[in-house]
Amino acid sequence: MKKHRLFVTFEGIDGCGKSTQINLARRYLKSCGFKVTCLREPGSTRIAESIRKILLHKQTRLTDITELLLYEAARTELVQREILPALKAGRIVLCDRFYDSTTAYQGYGRKLDIRMVKMLHRIATGPVKPDLTFVFDLNLRTAFTRRGHQPDRLESQSRAFFNRVRKGFLEIASQESRRVKVVDASRPPEEVFEQVKRHLLRKLRRQ
Amino acid sequence: MKKHRLFVTFEGIDGCGKSTQINLARRYLKSCGFKVTCLREPGSTRIAESIRKILLHKQTRLTDITELLLYEAARTELVQREILPALKAGRIVLCDRFYDSTTAYQGYGRKLDIRMVKMLHRIATGPVKPDLTFVFDLNLRTAFTRRGHQPDRLESQSRAFFNRVRKGFLEIASQESRRVKVVDASRPPEEVFEQVKRHLLRKLRRQ
Repeated sequence: MKKHRLFVTFEGIDGCGKSTQINLARRYLKSCGFKVTCLREPGSTRIAESIRKILLHKQTRLTDITELLLYEAARTELVQREILPALKAGRIVLCDRFYDSTTAYQGYGRKLDIRMVKMLHRIATGPVKPDLTFVFDLNLRTAFTRRGHQPDRLESQSRAFFNRVRKGFLEIASQESRRVKVVDASRPPEEVFEQVKRHLLRKLRRQ
Repeated sequence: MKKHRLFVTFEGIDGCGKSTQINLARRYLKSCGFKVTCLREPGSTRIAESIRKILLHKQTRLTDITELLLYEAARTELVQREILPALKAGRIVLCDRFYDSTTAYQGYGRKLDIRMVKMLHRIATGPVKPDLTFVFDLNLRTAFTRRGHQPDRLESQSRAFFNRVRKGFLEIASQESRRVKVVDASRPPEEVFEQVKRHLLRKLRRQ
């Protein structure tokens, strides 16, 4: 098996097709002989899954800061228990969401102070940073239709929120264009994956 | 009933007699006609109690940063759901531990960066700050005996940790001497409470 230390994150609003792309990437990289670890946020460790339950509990309306701190707490566990050991073992780590989601949802979406949010990322993740991040960009109507919602039934508040999140992801990408690649997620999955593969191969060649 | 907005926190290592003093203070203040709310950290709200379960789970070895972030997340809930509403309603809030415990245990005890820890307090609690804080100071041997441990059976690591925590509390008190009062907790409870009462009355007269 080829050893290659690479940390790749997959970002975007729900319905953007992240999971499909992670599966395609995993299969492709394995077929090339790489050792691959797939993780998801929040979760993937016992403690992080307990935190996930609090975060995703339907009847729970958390305060915005509690939500932010819980995401970061789950992230610290994931980094220490899974991501760092996998990278040290020469594996490629593919992660469904990472700190850019928190910047986009809690920072841009809930309008928390972006500098504070990014400072918490540094506390939670230490020196661990994705080598490559995909933002799967899609308009809200398509994303919601894919998720099985009727767009016209969406509250305007929710629509405004997800619009801010989408813009947040695009702003992150424009600020860190070397790391973060925007991919047009409205295309069929195979076409989208061609773009993903191109960026992956370029990164693997360079490292 | 007298309305009085006052936030008082009770700090110190386990076995220092905090709970006894909170009970004495509650009874005394109620007998004076004040409305009193007693809370404990971590916990006192549904979400904070869920977080408490993760924090205090015996088999769980959390990373230091996860532990820190979870304490702060539980604190945010407590501040927003309980402390602020009680203060707004003109109640006296007595809280068993607050952010000074995190500074002492996670900062001084676990040797995390104190500035980072205090920055997290500001994120978690916003403008809410105790008006008065008691540090019940006690030597380790007495504290452990009260908790039913044989001092000689303590690991040296644990002893060193709690010594750092104790020193942390004293350092906080010396840095914020107007807010934080050190009380000699080796005396009998009634004598200790005389000191507590004196500080409480002085604060109530001044406000």
